[in-house]
Amino acid sequence: MFAAALDDAAARVQARFDAVFADLPDSPIARGMRYALQGGKGLRGFLVLESARLHGLPPERADHAAAAIEALHAYSLVHDDLPCMDDDALRRGRPTVHVKWDEGSAVLVGDALQTLAFDLLARPGCAPDPAVRADLVLSLARAAGITGMVLGQAQDIAAETAATPLTLDQVIALQRNKTGALIGWSAEAGARLTGADPAPMSAYAGALGLAFQIADDILDVTGDTATAGKQLHKDAEAGKATFVGLLGLDGARARAKSLVAEAEAALAPFGPDAEQLRHAARFVISRDH
Amino acid sequence: MFAAALDDAAARVQARFDAVFADLPDSPIARGMRYALQGGKGLRGFLVLESARLHGLPPERADHAAAAIEALHAYSLVHDDLPCMDDDALRRGRPTVHVKWDEGSAVLVGDALQTLAFDLLARPGCAPDPAVRADLVLSLARAAGITGMVLGQAQDIAAETAATPLTLDQVIALQRNKTGALIGWSAEAGARLTGADPAPMSAYAGALGLAFQIADDILDVTGDTATAGKQLHKDAEAGKATFVGLLGLDGARARAKSLVAEAEAALAPFGPDAEQLRHAARFVISRDH
Repeated sequence: MFAAALDDAAARVQARFDAVFADLPDSPIARGMRYALQGGKGLRGFLVLESARLHGLPPERADHAAAAIEALHAYSLVHDDLPCMDDDALRRGRPTVHVKWDEGSAVLVGDALQTLAFDLLARPGCAPDPAVRADLVLSLARAAGITGMVLGQAQDIAAETAATPLTLDQVIALQRNKTGALIGWSAEAGARLTGADPAPMSAYAGALGLAFQIADDILDVTGDTATAGKQLHKDAEAGKATFVGLLGLDGARARAKSLVAEAEAALAPFGPDAEQLRHAARFVISRDH
Repeated sequence: MFAAALDDAAARVQARFDAVFADLPDSPIARGMRYALQGGKGLRGFLVLESARLHGLPPERADHAAAAIEALHAYSLVHDDLPCMDDDALRRGRPTVHVKWDEGSAVLVGDALQTLAFDLLARPGCAPDPAVRADLVLSLARAAGITGMVLGQAQDIAAETAATPLTLDQVIALQRNKTGALIGWSAEAGARLTGADPAPMSAYAGALGLAFQIADDILDVTGDTATAGKQLHKDAEAGKATFVGLLGLDGARARAKSLVAEAEAALAPFGPDAEQLRHAARFVISRDH
């Protein structure tokens, strides 16, 4: 049932992209953008739509924001996969953009996907109130840029050449930026779209984001490349400090489980309406891809 | 006197960046961003401030928008210079970001500079009216992304491997996207900031942008690398269709001159107030860097 809700959300986001790209001139870069937007789980877009529903908004009032976060996320994956970054040939079970096209095209595809994210948030169709649109742009920029995701990526790169391995607290801080910031934005989007206080969703999103990353680290050790659709077992080989490395496999699993309980508890004020978001929290640690 | 006005504008934009970066955590990526923002002519930021003045706005009401377009432009240069793109080692008389740091850092520096551009436009300090901020974000996204600058870059890459060289009309169309769109946005920013119709500035900006690119092509042939601060003579070697190649050196000079006259004529409704923008038009074809 949760899987169906996730699929429904992904289909709605893809329909938004269908409409967006129908208005765009065809070009290899536009085709690369579409390619990079396909095949993901769509968790971030789902969180936006579900958070909007929790705040009383129908999905058609949140699909621009859902598409925006998926475009932003897709840009980060295309650039992360580049040879000068993580050098990955496989993503979502298919060749990465620089493998299917070339590196220069992958740089441009990622660049244009980031631009598209802000484009979507600034369109009148995103929210009737321009103050809401400006707030969505500003908060996404803070989550994505040098105060958020990019800072986390920079911390990750710096850690690879650091003299001493990262401590658990440092890995947590890094991941809060690298993956937590976008997941947080997604979960808070419904509040921003309705002008409500986003803080109540922050505790949920913080625990969810960390659980998601711990699950990723566990998957990197225990997962199957074919099922995951991306190259695994890379972190240990690269000597990266991971939650599994720091806590052990059992310790990481226990931590992820307690974070999911924490995320579920944070949703208590929303009552049974938040059931899908509770499912989402359990999903992130049970997934095999 | 025009040179002094250009320097004043650049200093104002740098002061805005000083304030922005004082609030940011220090990191190699943040240092790379600062580095990439320094040493340019600041023409686009100048156009924003001057266009704002023409619409009755003091510079402190336009410096966020001026800094935003310089951040967006700097991102495009950092990524353009990458080995997988134009592979340039020299920019603004200094090593390019991937030479001074590394390729992965240059990707992240460019990414974060693009994010910063939208961040600046969405801040309340950019414009008190959120509808103006949302309009600035949307119009910059259209100018920068797959409908503007990135489309031009993609057309440029496609032309390199095309069976037949581009015609003059095709080169004009390409450059209107690749460099014209951001110059157009800059010149129209004052109108957008005041809620005025940006159309009257469009004719000026269109002619200016094309004159700028023709001057760039002339500089690539006749210029001195040390003065230009970047590698020259690359287009002819790469077999790219340029205005000089299509029109000859004298023909290109004549076309640039007539475009400047066109740009100046478009400013007629603004009277003597637009004198600095007329200077700017003459400057773009007389510059040696």
